[in-house]
Amino acid sequence: MNRCDGRARDQLRPIRITKHFTKYAEGSVLIECGDTKVICNATVEENVPPFLKGSGSGWVTAEYAMLPRATASRNKRDIQKLKRSPRATEIQRLIGRALRAAVDLDALGERSITIDCDVIQADGGTRTAAITGGYVALAMACQRLVEEGVLERTPLCHSISAVSVGIVDGVPMLDLCYTEDSAAEVDMNIVVNETGAFVELQGTGEHGTFDRAQLEELLALGEKGNRELQVLQHSVLAE
Amino acid sequence: MNRCDGRARDQLRPIRITKHFTKYAEGSVLIECGDTKVICNATVEENVPPFLKGSGSGWVTAEYAMLPRATASRNKRDIQKLKRSPRATEIQRLIGRALRAAVDLDALGERSITIDCDVIQADGGTRTAAITGGYVALAMACQRLVEEGVLERTPLCHSISAVSVGIVDGVPMLDLCYTEDSAAEVDMNIVVNETGAFVELQGTGEHGTFDRAQLEELLALGEKGNRELQVLQHSVLAE
Amino acid sequence: MNRCDGRARDQLRPIRITKHFTKYAEGSVLIECGDTKVICNATVEENVPPFLKGSGSGWVTAEYAMLPRATASRNKRDIQKLKRSPRATEIQRLIGRALRAAVDLDALGERSITIDCDVIQADGGTRTAAITGGYVALAMACQRLVEEGVLERTPLCHSISAVSVGIVDGVPMLDLCYTEDSAAEVDMNIVVNETGAFVELQGTGEHGTFDRAQLEELLALGEKGNRELQVLQHSVLAE
Amino acid sequence: MNRCDGRARDQLRPIRITKHFTKYAEGSVLIECGDTKVICNATVEENVPPFLKGSGSGWVTAEYAMLPRATASRNKRDIQKLKRSPRATEIQRLIGRALRAAVDLDALGERSITIDCDVIQADGGTRTAAITGGYVALAMACQRLVEEGVLERTPLCHSISAVSVGIVDGVPMLDLCYTEDSAAEVDMNIVVNETGAFVELQGTGEHGTFDRAQLEELLALGEKGNRELQVLQHSVLAE
Amino acid sequence: MNRCDGRARDQLRPIRITKHFTKYAEGSVLIECGDTKVICNATVEENVPPFLKGSGSGWVTAEYAMLPRATASRNKRDIQKLKRSPRATEIQRLIGRALRAAVDLDALGERSITIDCDVIQADGGTRTAAITGGYVALAMACQRLVEEGVLERTPLCHSISAVSVGIVDGVPMLDLCYTEDSAAEVDMNIVVNETGAFVELQGTGEHGTFDRAQLEELLALGEKGNRELQVLQHSVLAE
Amino acid sequence: MNRCDGRARDQLRPIRITKHFTKYAEGSVLIECGDTKVICNATVEENVPPFLKGSGSGWVTAEYAMLPRATASRNKRDIQKLKRSPRATEIQRLIGRALRAAVDLDALGERSITIDCDVIQADGGTRTAAITGGYVALAMACQRLVEEGVLERTPLCHSISAVSVGIVDGVPMLDLCYTEDSAAEVDMNIVVNETGAFVELQGTGEHGTFDRAQLEELLALGEKGNRELQVLQHSVLAE
Repeated sequence: MNRCDGRARDQLRPIRITKHFTKYAEGSVLIECGDTKVICNATVEENVPPFLKGSGSGWVTAEYAMLPRATASRNKRDIQKLKRSPRATEIQRLIGRALRAAVDLDALGERSITIDCDVIQADGGTRTAAITGGYVALAMACQRLVEEGVLERTPLCHSISAVSVGIVDGVPMLDLCYTEDSAAEVDMNIVVNETGAFVELQGTGEHGTFDRAQLEELLALGEKGNRELQVLQHSVLAE
Repeated sequence: MNRCDGRARDQLRPIRITKHFTKYAEGSVLIECGDTKVICNATVEENVPPFLKGSGSGWVTAEYAMLPRATASRNKRDIQKLKRSPRATEIQRLIGRALRAAVDLDALGERSITIDCDVIQADGGTRTAAITGGYVALAMACQRLVEEGVLERTPLCHSISAVSVGIVDGVPMLDLCYTEDSAAEVDMNIVVNETGAFVELQGTGEHGTFDRAQLEELLALGEKGNRELQVLQHSVLAE
Repeated sequence: MNRCDGRARDQLRPIRITKHFTKYAEGSVLIECGDTKVICNATVEENVPPFLKGSGSGWVTAEYAMLPRATASRNKRDIQKLKRSPRATEIQRLIGRALRAAVDLDALGERSITIDCDVIQADGGTRTAAITGGYVALAMACQRLVEEGVLERTPLCHSISAVSVGIVDGVPMLDLCYTEDSAAEVDMNIVVNETGAFVELQGTGEHGTFDRAQLEELLALGEKGNRELQVLQHSVLAE
Repeated sequence: MNRCDGRARDQLRPIRITKHFTKYAEGSVLIECGDTKVICNATVEENVPPFLKGSGSGWVTAEYAMLPRATASRNKRDIQKLKRSPRATEIQRLIGRALRAAVDLDALGERSITIDCDVIQADGGTRTAAITGGYVALAMACQRLVEEGVLERTPLCHSISAVSVGIVDGVPMLDLCYTEDSAAEVDMNIVVNETGAFVELQGTGEHGTFDRAQLEELLALGEKGNRELQVLQHSVLAE
Repeated sequence: MNRCDGRARDQLRPIRITKHFTKYAEGSVLIECGDTKVICNATVEENVPPFLKGSGSGWVTAEYAMLPRATASRNKRDIQKLKRSPRATEIQRLIGRALRAAVDLDALGERSITIDCDVIQADGGTRTAAITGGYVALAMACQRLVEEGVLERTPLCHSISAVSVGIVDGVPMLDLCYTEDSAAEVDMNIVVNETGAFVELQGTGEHGTFDRAQLEELLALGEKGNRELQVLQHSVLAE
Repeated sequence: MNRCDGRARDQLRPIRITKHFTKYAEGSVLIECGDTKVICNATVEENVPPFLKGSGSGWVTAEYAMLPRATASRNKRDIQKLKRSPRATEIQRLIGRALRAAVDLDALGERSITIDCDVIQADGGTRTAAITGGYVALAMACQRLVEEGVLERTPLCHSISAVSVGIVDGVPMLDLCYTEDSAAEVDMNIVVNETGAFVELQGTGEHGTFDRAQLEELLALGEKGNRELQVLQHSVLAE
């Protein structure tokens, strides 16, 4: 059983995280996982959604979208169809939940941070790349709130990373590219913090099902992948 | 640690599935899980989405919505905001994936079955109730395709049920009502087939995280709940 | 000339009004007129539309919708077409006008009552069923405002009921079911208060016209039907 | 009791119908009823809505809108609010039903006529002006179908006119201007054909109710008004 | 080389500007340039867009639309397509920029003037007609602000007019009608003030290109046309 | 008079065009003009808009959008406001017209090329950068149609480039950055082909006006800028 790019079953694709990819955002990175490329921009705004007005608490949310030609064939823009892509809606809710787990919202105060994740090239694992890269953008924005004296100390309380795992032709593997993802019986997205505790676990078996034993294998692969991603995030932020 | 309605930690709320709740749909049930009430109507149509035209294969999809006053305060209708509720979008994608796992789409032929899940009263667990009830509506519609001679044998290949589990105040429990759900550190929706194999697993720890041991406990609770639901579904369909 | 269900020309279908059909709404009923079934939920909110801000006066309004499979074939949801059904728009304006005639808006004070009328099964006469059932939900909500001490006395000043009449194959008849409605030369909706005075009268002759004599006959039928409905409403509210 | 412009109770405002108001439409008129001014353009198109494809029958429909400054204060355009005005929706459905009663849709063949009614100045009675003027535009378009040899004889089978009546300060009166309409207890729109038979009757008592005797008085006023309008329509079309 | 209506190359079509075309708007004109007819209504409102709140400055903006049958075939209304026509969007931005150049926004104070330009018949040059007519409506509204004592002196600081020029079959000409416009290699819209200074210049060569020499010729034609339009505007406003 | 980045009045910012910026599009470049960065992706599709069906002719069109954080503060996405940004609408129409001038649409055959221009960082001149970069992406896509044997020879017939010029504090200058653009009395976008002939000319004087002499100066600056851009485009395409 060979993977399309010759990787081992438990091997991540090459990851590159470029900080300050754009100049205006409070936090900005380009994350590349193999051929998957996502721009993650964090914006700090001095307001909160209506349900938090007067609460003293802040908010972290995410938006996810793809450029029309991030994929093999062109997708019409959401605005042309007058509705946000249901797939993007599902994904950005996942990213938002994942990244909120990184922040002490009370310590953030009544302000909000929006992480825009725009996929410029998609080759599988865009949502987990968005979480992993989005975390770095979020951390940069928090850092800046401290540097600029808005906050005394960072509201960041956890490191968050995410990786996809799946079963292809009966073989569990880490970090599926698009070809593998399309053929997978099971695919799972695993979001953890720096202790390896689960923040979110989403496993789907549309072309199959999975049992406890397979789940164990997938979780082990995810643990390895996320550990490596956390090391990378840490070193990138330390630069 | 007492549950609001005095149930044991591993006890489902009373479930009632009423068949033929409305008269026009090919399959129709009202499912009640405690105070959660969902109308599930299955519609068979002799056409498929564009990407399946000419494939010989069919499609199963779901829509999920709540009446404005299914909840403690009134929610505006989607049409007033000109966008489908993002939460409903996420949920109906889950229901659709879950119920597609019940059907051999090739055997269904080029027709589609839409399961409309309309919540008339929400008290926690509406998405899992929709899957469990939606499966019965789907099975009824498949049965009818055979009875009417459209298909020779049912395209149904698996029983699908779903249940929610969660950790509240550190205690894992089965089938959370709204009060418990709001206070949960972790909540998880578990969709299985008749063999107990996982079709979908979605665990979220927005107000906390969970580790492997907790995951085990949650899966065990879900296994018990889904086993009971499958028995009920079977007996309702046999009536 | 026989009616499809053997009724006399001037006979209503069996009517059932179930109070407290859902648990959260301030007023909630399920009204069944033969096979037509409508959930009517009344919601009280402590705000008014912009044009009434600061006026001291309240507002009563209605929304009307059908579940996708309330009818013989499935209708797409409004949100999928991004516009509220024109038919539903026309109907909910009628319901709103009719139910506003039941309430002293000054006595209501600066709050609003919304009556959500959701048709779960349609077999003719859904708009008049919505008015008749909606009135009961509205009355329950007003009662509750008094019981909870928000208002000293009920702002309700009139009982409102509605019924449809029509001419089918030259024969005037009361309370048309869907089959009769589809074949009618003339159909008319008659909304009255407890004195029999007209609140709204809408007669349409798309497949025919009607003269003064026929109008008289239709009004007489409507008078009989509405009298019976008012008796029923009164007894249901007295329970 | 004096009317704002000194008219008798049973007197129409001055009516002017200008044919060929715009040059492209198959039928085009400007109708002026006092200060109410509506452009009615009839467009013939060689296609029908989906539900009539292959039926051999045609369709007549109407659209109604107001210029933003047709009224005392400016109304935002529908497109800015992304929804058609509910009031306009209700009105254009009435106009469509009324004008369909003028045409033998089988004789029209599989084509459709759309009557665009655009109010450039509103001073009460815009919907009845739209029907009365729209009929003339429709008749012009039918005439043209014959002149151009598309049809051998006109599909027009009835003359349609409409007028508003109402009760102001207890006094029934004909053809209410905006000031009267705003103060009316009851207002009613009466659509008839050339024999005086009712095509549509819509009476509303939002600030009051009406009884049989008042209904009689209103119908008598409407009869007089519509008779005069039919004479005018006839003479305009004969020019 | 003959023009369709026999005009000289540098001759405008007959222009008529009718003031007070509708009665409610603060400024209202019908402008007719040959068969092109546009209603221009200016509305004064005592508020400004969010970005000007508290600035002391006012705003001038425009909206442009066409009646469905202003053209040879019927165009669907924007609201049916749920998006403003892109062509209209481009045009109304041009009209807004052009008319803002007529007004000292600081002198206007925190209020806004909206110029609604509704084309009732289109025969080429609708956007320039809208600017030329819109200026007169705007001037009327400014005059009224002074007459009513809202402002001490008019905020109007420049006269604005606009005209189209183009090259058809190699021949530069002034004020193209629709037939000429459709066949033009180059068309250009020239907006100037009373000194002839350019406010906006938009030249497009979709079916061709143009060089400096041709540009000179076009500008000379535009200068002549605009001079005549300014004279007419001045005399109409002086009436 | 010093420019913010020390450039001469007639000097372009450093331009970089990176080919094959994304891997799926038939033509893809990243164009950087100073800090303005635009991804231009050309997509070839084997269909045309309805108005060209059966004509044998093809179509070239463009879409323009900005990432939410391409600017100093975050802009909401179009889909959240349910309307395409009017500014973007105006710009993409300009880009489409400009790029159509590069292609012989008959030679292209019944297929369409869409140029998606997505601004990832905006610092003035995004629309001209989009045209200049979009041309290169378009040329790459045309080249590919030949390489893949779809067309025998390229349908490309002209090189298209665009540059902005403006007057700031009375001084005409080339290629304005955002700071200069915001302060400009006049700004103008000049689109030319390889002979220097004008394809489109758009000059606006919202905070001022301009006369013939100033126009001459601006055109001369534009000529210089476009000449340099054409040389660059040529060499990039030759690589």
